[in-house]
Amino acid sequence: MNKEELQALLNEVKDGSVSPEEAMSKIKLMPYDDLGYAKIDTHRGVRQGENEVIYGAGKTKEQIKGIVNHMLSSGVKSVLVTRLSPESADYLKTDIPIFYDSLSQIGIAGEKPEGTNRGNIVIATGGTSDIPVAEEAALTAEYYGNKVSRLYDVGVSGVHRLFDNAELLADARVVVAVAGMEGALASVIGGMVDCPVIAVPTSVGYGANFGGLSALLSMLNSCASGVSVVNIDNGFGAGYLASMINKM
Amino acid sequence: MNKEELQALLNEVKDGSVSPEEAMSKIKLMPYDDLGYAKIDTHRGVRQGENEVIYGAGKTKEQIKGIVNHMLSSGVKSVLVTRLSPESADYLKTDIPIFYDSLSQIGIAGEKPEGTNRGNIVIATGGTSDIPVAEEAALTAEYYGNKVSRLYDVGVSGVHRLFDNAELLADARVVVAVAGMEGALASVIGGMVDCPVIAVPTSVGYGANFGGLSALLSMLNSCASGVSVVNIDNGFGAGYLASMINKM
Amino acid sequence: MNKEELQALLNEVKDGSVSPEEAMSKIKLMPYDDLGYAKIDTHRGVRQGENEVIYGAGKTKEQIKGIVNHMLSSGVKSVLVTRLSPESADYLKTDIPIFYDSLSQIGIAGEKPEGTNRGNIVIATGGTSDIPVAEEAALTAEYYGNKVSRLYDVGVSGVHRLFDNAELLADARVVVAVAGMEGALASVIGGMVDCPVIAVPTSVGYGANFGGLSALLSMLNSCASGVSVVNIDNGFGAGYLASMINKM
Amino acid sequence: MNKEELQALLNEVKDGSVSPEEAMSKIKLMPYDDLGYAKIDTHRGVRQGENEVIYGAGKTKEQIKGIVNHMLSSGVKSVLVTRLSPESADYLKTDIPIFYDSLSQIGIAGEKPEGTNRGNIVIATGGTSDIPVAEEAALTAEYYGNKVSRLYDVGVSGVHRLFDNAELLADARVVVAVAGMEGALASVIGGMVDCPVIAVPTSVGYGANFGGLSALLSMLNSCASGVSVVNIDNGFGAGYLASMINKM
Amino acid sequence: MNKEELQALLNEVKDGSVSPEEAMSKIKLMPYDDLGYAKIDTHRGVRQGENEVIYGAGKTKEQIKGIVNHMLSSGVKSVLVTRLSPESADYLKTDIPIFYDSLSQIGIAGEKPEGTNRGNIVIATGGTSDIPVAEEAALTAEYYGNKVSRLYDVGVSGVHRLFDNAELLADARVVVAVAGMEGALASVIGGMVDCPVIAVPTSVGYGANFGGLSALLSMLNSCASGVSVVNIDNGFGAGYLASMINKM
Amino acid sequence: MNKEELQALLNEVKDGSVSPEEAMSKIKLMPYDDLGYAKIDTHRGVRQGENEVIYGAGKTKEQIKGIVNHMLSSGVKSVLVTRLSPESADYLKTDIPIFYDSLSQIGIAGEKPEGTNRGNIVIATGGTSDIPVAEEAALTAEYYGNKVSRLYDVGVSGVHRLFDNAELLADARVVVAVAGMEGALASVIGGMVDCPVIAVPTSVGYGANFGGLSALLSMLNSCASGVSVVNIDNGFGAGYLASMINKM
Amino acid sequence: MNKEELQALLNEVKDGSVSPEEAMSKIKLMPYDDLGYAKIDTHRGVRQGENEVIYGAGKTKEQIKGIVNHMLSSGVKSVLVTRLSPESADYLKTDIPIFYDSLSQIGIAGEKPEGTNRGNIVIATGGTSDIPVAEEAALTAEYYGNKVSRLYDVGVSGVHRLFDNAELLADARVVVAVAGMEGALASVIGGMVDCPVIAVPTSVGYGANFGGLSALLSMLNSCASGVSVVNIDNGFGAGYLASMINKM
Amino acid sequence: MNKEELQALLNEVKDGSVSPEEAMSKIKLMPYDDLGYAKIDTHRGVRQGENEVIYGAGKTKEQIKGIVNHMLSSGVKSVLVTRLSPESADYLKTDIPIFYDSLSQIGIAGEKPEGTNRGNIVIATGGTSDIPVAEEAALTAEYYGNKVSRLYDVGVSGVHRLFDNAELLADARVVVAVAGMEGALASVIGGMVDCPVIAVPTSVGYGANFGGLSALLSMLNSCASGVSVVNIDNGFGAGYLASMINKM
Repeated sequence: MNKEELQALLNEVKDGSVSPEEAMSKIKLMPYDDLGYAKIDTHRGVRQGENEVIYGAGKTKEQIKGIVNHMLSSGVKSVLVTRLSPESADYLKTDIPIFYDSLSQIGIAGEKPEGTNRGNIVIATGGTSDIPVAEEAALTAEYYGNKVSRLYDVGVSGVHRLFDNAELLADARVVVAVAGMEGALASVIGGMVDCPVIAVPTSVGYGANFGGLSALLSMLNSCASGVSVVNIDNGFGAGYLASMINKM
Repeated sequence: MNKEELQALLNEVKDGSVSPEEAMSKIKLMPYDDLGYAKIDTHRGVRQGENEVIYGAGKTKEQIKGIVNHMLSSGVKSVLVTRLSPESADYLKTDIPIFYDSLSQIGIAGEKPEGTNRGNIVIATGGTSDIPVAEEAALTAEYYGNKVSRLYDVGVSGVHRLFDNAELLADARVVVAVAGMEGALASVIGGMVDCPVIAVPTSVGYGANFGGLSALLSMLNSCASGVSVVNIDNGFGAGYLASMINKM
Repeated sequence: MNKEELQALLNEVKDGSVSPEEAMSKIKLMPYDDLGYAKIDTHRGVRQGENEVIYGAGKTKEQIKGIVNHMLSSGVKSVLVTRLSPESADYLKTDIPIFYDSLSQIGIAGEKPEGTNRGNIVIATGGTSDIPVAEEAALTAEYYGNKVSRLYDVGVSGVHRLFDNAELLADARVVVAVAGMEGALASVIGGMVDCPVIAVPTSVGYGANFGGLSALLSMLNSCASGVSVVNIDNGFGAGYLASMINKM
Repeated sequence: MNKEELQALLNEVKDGSVSPEEAMSKIKLMPYDDLGYAKIDTHRGVRQGENEVIYGAGKTKEQIKGIVNHMLSSGVKSVLVTRLSPESADYLKTDIPIFYDSLSQIGIAGEKPEGTNRGNIVIATGGTSDIPVAEEAALTAEYYGNKVSRLYDVGVSGVHRLFDNAELLADARVVVAVAGMEGALASVIGGMVDCPVIAVPTSVGYGANFGGLSALLSMLNSCASGVSVVNIDNGFGAGYLASMINKM
Repeated sequence: MNKEELQALLNEVKDGSVSPEEAMSKIKLMPYDDLGYAKIDTHRGVRQGENEVIYGAGKTKEQIKGIVNHMLSSGVKSVLVTRLSPESADYLKTDIPIFYDSLSQIGIAGEKPEGTNRGNIVIATGGTSDIPVAEEAALTAEYYGNKVSRLYDVGVSGVHRLFDNAELLADARVVVAVAGMEGALASVIGGMVDCPVIAVPTSVGYGANFGGLSALLSMLNSCASGVSVVNIDNGFGAGYLASMINKM
Repeated sequence: MNKEELQALLNEVKDGSVSPEEAMSKIKLMPYDDLGYAKIDTHRGVRQGENEVIYGAGKTKEQIKGIVNHMLSSGVKSVLVTRLSPESADYLKTDIPIFYDSLSQIGIAGEKPEGTNRGNIVIATGGTSDIPVAEEAALTAEYYGNKVSRLYDVGVSGVHRLFDNAELLADARVVVAVAGMEGALASVIGGMVDCPVIAVPTSVGYGANFGGLSALLSMLNSCASGVSVVNIDNGFGAGYLASMINKM
Repeated sequence: MNKEELQALLNEVKDGSVSPEEAMSKIKLMPYDDLGYAKIDTHRGVRQGENEVIYGAGKTKEQIKGIVNHMLSSGVKSVLVTRLSPESADYLKTDIPIFYDSLSQIGIAGEKPEGTNRGNIVIATGGTSDIPVAEEAALTAEYYGNKVSRLYDVGVSGVHRLFDNAELLADARVVVAVAGMEGALASVIGGMVDCPVIAVPTSVGYGANFGGLSALLSMLNSCASGVSVVNIDNGFGAGYLASMINKM
Repeated sequence: MNKEELQALLNEVKDGSVSPEEAMSKIKLMPYDDLGYAKIDTHRGVRQGENEVIYGAGKTKEQIKGIVNHMLSSGVKSVLVTRLSPESADYLKTDIPIFYDSLSQIGIAGEKPEGTNRGNIVIATGGTSDIPVAEEAALTAEYYGNKVSRLYDVGVSGVHRLFDNAELLADARVVVAVAGMEGALASVIGGMVDCPVIAVPTSVGYGANFGGLSALLSMLNSCASGVSVVNIDNGFGAGYLASMINKM
């Protein structure tokens, strides 16, 4: 949907021939720009509230730069890129202002948004090795304007570390629980708080963790209520959903 | 924590020797009643906002009745029982007023709460065979006072059925997407709405669905943002979480 | 090794031509009685400290009775039978004095040994549905003369129930942690105590528990030290090992 | 079957002692050339309609060159090589005219066939990262003389991108749906068109995609009719089958 | 889309304001009837060429009868029901004329269509035990007007049985290869014919067949070209796709 | 190949126009009788040395009787039927003389062959519960004229029971090792003998045996040389192969 | 718990207002030091008997050095680091006295404790390739003051090597059985000794060992009593638990 | 057992106080040399007919050289080493005469045995990529004195290549069938021959071959009799077993 079409539609809304609801629904379903190798959803901000995000894995650095440039030139102020390799980040940097965190492989091209510091999202990890995934969640949530509290290395084998932070947890509007190995963190936190818990299994561990399967199954079978699960190592998904819930 | 202890604590709050926050955190961590075969969390309403729920599978009918009776006599007005077999429901009925839905195997002992009809939770299924799981979610959400819209049999192989209901979806505060087989419903809905989507894989199907594994993996790998997943056939978990989010 | 051979060996020990250690090792390796369908290890009490136990699953009731009768007539005072179906128990009862617990399907033929009440083994479960497996462990440990404390329904989603029993746990010489679903109980207990924890995953749950796989993987990946794991639903193995450790 | 034998057989057909059908069936079952490490099916064009294709993975560059040279010198005009590494392609180039596409690792030795542009095969992908597999399918189908329309990055999380191309899909004689992650593309397209849909799961994704398992199971469980599935990342197989159907 | 809307649209096509292609695409995306528990796709014959089929598993007999009756009263002449249990078939028979094959659990309500006997679909099985799945495919293909040749019990351990039928296979326009256990039938046939082969793995077998997994993986990894795979035991899907290809 | 054709071929052999080897190879590839639901390989005795065997699972009792009758009337003296249910056995008995062993579900229709008692095949089991599978192997091997020694309940947890029978094992020409659970029997025997060991994993056990997977993987990974493996619970396959090797 | 709080608590114990048991339990649950990326459990020696151990995998060398330095400066005399890569070991060495074993990747920073040589732990391996894991167990057990006997390369395919060491095994208080491939070592040893056996599956092997799954399942299904299992390749866990049991 | 002990035993046999059978069984169970990291089974030639073989994977080059040297200096004339990396082969070459085949990674240290060319073992592969595994089998069988016929690239998708070699197969005493992908080769050959078929699944392939699982399951489920299976890529095991059977 280009500007003219949008204008026409809005005129129809104005003169009453189209109801606002109908217009909204039409706007929601249509537009994208076609680069051949990618169809960029430039109006996703209208339809789903947040701009499209680029998943960097499996794309060439040229493709990533092409998409970022197209979006910035379309008026999008900043573009979040996840799973951005250091090589691709270096390649982008030559032309485009970019914030890059090498631990979580998060990149933000264009203007980094100023945090509005809304609500309180607590992001907890079982161990130190889970921090890269947790930071993917944290930086994503901060990108969307949320206040994030980090509570790292509070795994259940020393559960007093969690209880010592009970007040921090009690104040959370959403908790993101990031853990590998046995993944029990989500269940224990789920039993302590009365807000949604987003569980992120990680591939941290070895042997019978089978690439994160142990934590994944553990979290899916949580006996605590209010817990749901995203993909193994999917920090972005958890941060995005936490932001969505925090803004309700 | 018995009444006297609670009284004493509240007196200390009143006279300032204990801050309300400290008191809250103490109350949150303690009490349950011990029946030997079960430790009933009678103050869970204080700690987590909702009363304890009984998971009926794997418990004898005598155990279920014992727990229900204990809770009702402790002042809880109604008790939700999930996975309640018809046999156990019949056994309870002889002594206790109970609402029972045989499709979803949900039972509500005591007074069925009047719906407050808050917000709007849309519960969608891919097919007719997914309805029992969807009803477990729907009745749970209604039990906790939410307004629920049912949108059944809108699987992605006839995706126009979904688009025809785009406005209903657009009005949702939370969507619960219940699907077996390829479980694609969650992704398609996730791309249409700007609210959290709770995906419930079901064991509906045969052959390479491997008891729900196909839908589970599909939903965990959703390329749509804002989607999280609960256990296979876990309607209750989805309904509970949807309610929690809806009330934020 | 028949009596004569044993006599000869012991004479050699007496006159010093064979050391007691050498004799012990020879006695340990040899004897059994052959019923055709079973080779009964009648001297296992000598070699491994405890008499042979009958695993009832997959044996006909006639085979079980045959083995029990043979052992009792060989001078064994009591025989432990696990996974003994009610049908087989009834069949045995007609001829043989037997204690039978239908919940755990444990049978004890002959004289039930009097408990010596040694040490303290704590057997904890995540939920009520795990009790049959826990009782298999408890009755086994009691059969071998240990004192057993039952701590049932203390799953991690209400972890205060565990902490309330911290002293009981602190007094344990061994803990058996029995849990299905996410199986996190073993890790949390493992972080609280300084004694061995034997983790028993159960098949309790549904969907992505895949018959106990979720709890099994969770327990194998425990980040707590001092935790080891037995087969899914293997209460007997846990009880036996707990007894062995308790007696050290 | 050497030339003399073929001549003799055809003479028998001519004089009526052998029916053409019998002759055809004999010719179909026999000949190949034996290089020791490979038995080249030089008459496959007779038996199955298309010349033998070389699967490059797991073969040394010397083996590949040997087979290609043998086929070209046997009168085959062009040879399709799949999974041809850049190193092997370079090695072939020194002696043999070759077209090579590094994205899909497709090589065509000898004369590249001129497209006959028959029918219309639409090849769609869920995302940009699926393009290498899609190109393997597309180049294969073009090699066999089919017209191919590429429709890339139309995944179900922005399903309006698909609907915007509904006419292109409606004109297809066959659709190849290439997708990783949740693999829902095949089902949605399957519900939109009335022609065969060949689903190609890809290994694109991470975590619980388990190397393409999520998309594979999703596609096998498709609730849309007319969908069948080939191996993970098997672009060649899909392109070959699409061509076979398109020519019917 | 109701009749008025359809009329209006067709008028616009007539007066040239809407092209026939646009009209077609609009008609394709819309209509269904909503029974609450099912949304019946009454215009699927327009959109996808064949009427909607009822998958009987997981539906109550009342639901099945409700859907069948609704379709018949909407003018559909015959309704195919798959996985129809004998109980449900008996329940339908009391009111509705129905053809029922208990081996394949296929039911056809209303008028059984007369075969047009188009083309030639060969349906082959590895063994006698695969026949129920093969008949599901065969009856489906016949329902849609195709000529079907049955070639049962020609598994690869006696591969001469296949070669003896080489002419039958050579005449096929499509082959459906139905096999459990090692599932090699599809590969061997795939190497003999020059038409599409639809492979149907079955759950026939025991032990390491893991419910059909062995045949499924075998067929997905077929080294023969032109082979694609449907779900385990999915005879209907294979028959439907075979018909679709046969009609091209 | 009918009698006339066979006569003609043999005449050609006699007069030297066809070598015996060529004739043998032609006879090997051809004949079977077609019952529609089964193609009976009546000349398999010529081609593979032993008559065709009927796998009873998944066949109706009518089909089994049909095949047995056809074979007996074709001159086969006795027919081996595996996995023959008691119901089917009863059904056959009314018309056909049959030997039936309910433990192993082996049936022998017609004249039970007299044992030739060739060589020595030792069949060992880990436990009593593995005996049904072992008997399937033993009766099969005896049917083909081999001498079988049964060595049951010699599992590795009491390995002295094996060593006590070292001489019996040393005399074996082939050993069949049947075990469930950890399946270690095959490795231990494999290290003791210098003849082929055929390992048969069984589904005996529970929990993490996953239907026989534990024993299967254990046996496939045996560090002993000379061990090969057949399907889980495939006693027939082991007995047949043992016979084949014993006769070399 | 800071010093003042600890002082106060001890005063209460002294004057009798708090029992020693209550004090002990309070001290056990609280303290750790927070480095942001890690929460160091400095009082774990009080709570669980042994100081915290650093799991080196997934931590940067800077993080490891930070934690080690913090612990040493807090008065801990020596720090055990497992899975310490050679690179990280080199990095630590520049500042901190460290013992490092490159085979097992065990590092001990600070003063290496003098062995007290308590009891007797036998550590056995199936093969030479299992030694790195066995050494992780052995060095861990020695670090905690136990006497360790190494019995390497005694796999079950040459079981006489085990029996030749029967006396060594008979003297053990605990046995650690380390094996890959079929993992049968644990069962055979379990049947020979009357002390606990800790089974460590290793990832040694190829093909159907699936990264250690074969040995893991084999050990979990051991038919010998007294056997429990830790994670694949978890030498540390086995050594720690063996020490805990040995000290009882 | 050292020489003196062996001498004494043989004297006892000579004078009749020990029977030859008893002596044989004693010699079979005992001796090995202990290098600490390996216990070399120097008398395995006596006990099992063939000398011990070194599995090179997971051993350091120094360990391999140590074992080889020890064996050669103990009088063994040649030592077979499997999975010998080129680096380790180079390291051995500096001191020890060695034959090395880099394709199969087979090394033979000392004198390469002269072939006795006994019997006829046919080794067939599905494709060219399976040759390295096939050569491991072939060189092993030749090392033990067997005649080997190689029949490579005869996969079932061009099954006429197999039939063209029917006579070669008919002459085999044992067939080794090596195949990846769908692994159907074993079944087809199994149906053509009347001798044992040893199936070797390979990891050749991609996607849903899951590292060789597809071929493994296919071969285990073979409907042909006389087929048994070894581990994925285990060419040595197949060659060893084929030799053992060929010598019967």
